[in-house]
Amino acid sequence: MNLSVIITAGGIGKRFSSEVPKQFLSLMGTPVLMRTLNSFFNWNPMNEIILTLPTEWISYWEKLAKKHDFKIPHRIVDGGKERYHSIKNALDICSGDFVMIHDGVRPLVDKGTLNRCLNALKKNKAVVPYIELKDSIRELNRDNSISRDRKNYVSVQTPQCFDLKLIQKAYQGEYLDIFTDDASVAENSGMEIYLVKGNEENLKITTPIDFKIAESLIKK
Amino acid sequence: MNLSVIITAGGIGKRFSSEVPKQFLSLMGTPVLMRTLNSFFNWNPMNEIILTLPTEWISYWEKLAKKHDFKIPHRIVDGGKERYHSIKNALDICSGDFVMIHDGVRPLVDKGTLNRCLNALKKNKAVVPYIELKDSIRELNRDNSISRDRKNYVSVQTPQCFDLKLIQKAYQGEYLDIFTDDASVAENSGMEIYLVKGNEENLKITTPIDFKIAESLIKK
Repeated sequence: MNLSVIITAGGIGKRFSSEVPKQFLSLMGTPVLMRTLNSFFNWNPMNEIILTLPTEWISYWEKLAKKHDFKIPHRIVDGGKERYHSIKNALDICSGDFVMIHDGVRPLVDKGTLNRCLNALKKNKAVVPYIELKDSIRELNRDNSISRDRKNYVSVQTPQCFDLKLIQKAYQGEYLDIFTDDASVAENSGMEIYLVKGNEENLKITTPIDFKIAESLIKK
Repeated sequence: MNLSVIITAGGIGKRFSSEVPKQFLSLMGTPVLMRTLNSFFNWNPMNEIILTLPTEWISYWEKLAKKHDFKIPHRIVDGGKERYHSIKNALDICSGDFVMIHDGVRPLVDKGTLNRCLNALKKNKAVVPYIELKDSIRELNRDNSISRDRKNYVSVQTPQCFDLKLIQKAYQGEYLDIFTDDASVAENSGMEIYLVKGNEENLKITTPIDFKIAESLIKK
């Protein structure tokens, strides 16, 4: 079964107080995005890797790759206006039977998670890794907030994994505001989402504190 | 306005692979629970502090306090069977007008969060700190999972803060399975929950990885 991997690094990091988007920052000597590509390449070097980048940062990435003598084969796709359009562009050039779509700022996905995703793809068209919530959650209403029992909810990570043809088709639709991740696009097109266990270290580096946390997890 | 602080350390830590409950483990030289009490004492030494502990660990705590020459004044309440009953017992002996109920395993609550809670208590009967969700969430159904727009949800922390009389009254009711935190008990009795910004470092130490993360945040 041929697998394509899309790594999305389209964000320009509004939440991060840094000029350079966080995916390019050095995490213990290696830029975050290179660590993310390494995680997939070290798991299986045969998968094709497609990287979406903001147009204005492509040449920066290429120089960074040269500087770090970064050799992992990958194709670059110009990021669209929204994450949705980047993914759509990337899906168009995938050649696998299945695709894993992964956040560029999640360098710490482990082989266990990737194996669980791959195994589940044998019987399911849409697979997503999850972890349990530690904090309670509340739903926000116009004037109020409502307790939700956290046992009924999980937190989902990436890679979000799909049958290529079906997710390509799902991405033919119009962009909707409710699309917070690829699974929500898939679900909207009628696919059922199968959940597998993720790994706790697989955090999304969103703030400077996450950066610090990722460092400590790598040192471990 | 007189404030009571309840620190709950009733858990025996099923998720943590350690003989000694995690609230007693040393975090950079100081047991987690002492760090938590310190956070409140350093913010305002005038508040009364009530600590709920599992019966079988009270003498352990007392020896630990002696060993660390720990002088922060606090009263100990015997933890009940469930967290619910511990809190109920602790509420019975509070003497403040307001009460903050805080997880013993959240040592990194900061003064900003505590000040925002206190200020909000001047106009609200129930106040809870929140942070935004970083990951997408899904609701679990019997056979399926459903995307929920994470913009409509927040993650809540502690201290959860209340008008003492009203929360005492709320805790007079029967224990229900939907009570995942104090705010859900308050809400069930008809109170509205007001949200204030928490601090990202205020994590609940639940797993060995959280422990590692807390260490790195303290070093920062």
